[in-house]
Amino acid sequence: MSVHVINYDRQRMARWEPDSRGRLEQAAFALYAERGFEHTTVAEIAQRAGVTERTFFRHFADKREVLFAGSGALQDLLASTVVEAPDGVTPIDAVAAAIEAAGAQLEERRERARQRQAVIAANAELRERELIKLASLAAALADALRQRGVSEPAASLTAEAGIAVFRIAVERWVDEANKRSLPELVRDSFGQLRAVTAGR
Amino acid sequence: MSVHVINYDRQRMARWEPDSRGRLEQAAFALYAERGFEHTTVAEIAQRAGVTERTFFRHFADKREVLFAGSGALQDLLASTVVEAPDGVTPIDAVAAAIEAAGAQLEERRERARQRQAVIAANAELRERELIKLASLAAALADALRQRGVSEPAASLTAEAGIAVFRIAVERWVDEANKRSLPELVRDSFGQLRAVTAGR
Repeated sequence: MSVHVINYDRQRMARWEPDSRGRLEQAAFALYAERGFEHTTVAEIAQRAGVTERTFFRHFADKREVLFAGSGALQDLLASTVVEAPDGVTPIDAVAAAIEAAGAQLEERRERARQRQAVIAANAELRERELIKLASLAAALADALRQRGVSEPAASLTAEAGIAVFRIAVERWVDEANKRSLPELVRDSFGQLRAVTAGR
Repeated sequence: MSVHVINYDRQRMARWEPDSRGRLEQAAFALYAERGFEHTTVAEIAQRAGVTERTFFRHFADKREVLFAGSGALQDLLASTVVEAPDGVTPIDAVAAAIEAAGAQLEERRERARQRQAVIAANAELRERELIKLASLAAALADALRQRGVSEPAASLTAEAGIAVFRIAVERWVDEANKRSLPELVRDSFGQLRAVTAGR
């Protein structure tokens, strides 16, 4: 088989193979890392993924959305873990279980999640968007706690504390020097939160 | 003195009396409450305050800035309270003292602060801006704790927990049915945070 034929096959595959969404994500993350989020266009993402711009827009509203598409699923995971925790589990333990489950999910896609954090950290607009998404996650957790009969302000305080732990655990996780898993850092950070609020 | 002369004097005062900044703030808050933030222009604020638009822009970058102009002073108050807390004060108590001091300052301008919250709550862009300002306050608190020798992640966790308490105390405070002062609600919310993180 000649090189030419191989290239032709690759092109054909790029054009027709399934999972164009996954390839768009991969292309977007690669380009954001190479040339920065600001300097990447949808046209370039589509070209790298071997699909049309129209295909891009079937999957994502804009190039920012590639980075935040997972937040709906994350929110569902957090809320359902809290709602489905057995009776008698305290609010903070229900939230800790939810954050740890989210951490386990991100740990499975460790490289992608770490790339994502680096892209967001480098861009003020993306950092703002991330704050807003985190506030939505906190609101969803508080709502799930109220469904468990937790009253206010305990529900909101527990939810906000949980999201603070999540944020800080993720920051520790993406640190170059870190070797620990995200669920481990979530557990450790909850332990530290308990210690600091107890005045130690 | 005739009514005409009184009106003339008022106009003259409006044009020349000092504290144009204070009058601009008052005019802006009144207009935001009357017709909504979106539907208020800088020209209208200046006219209501009896100054020129140029005077407005000497004090504020835009109409949004009228709502956030106080956040620099608030950040200084939080950071200096933490830095200046006596040795031996635990991180969480230093942060609680700072948040309570901020609460006392807002309590002094109770009506203005409550109007401000109502304007922000009604507008998505302002809610986002508020989230970003709160994140800056958390970062300033964490920085002040590190200056006291508190290590990471304890410094960031304590700071984030403190800002969560602040947000939730302010939400409780602006509630129509609430009769308690903000410093009182800050103390109560810190107590509730301690209780929830201890698993109660």
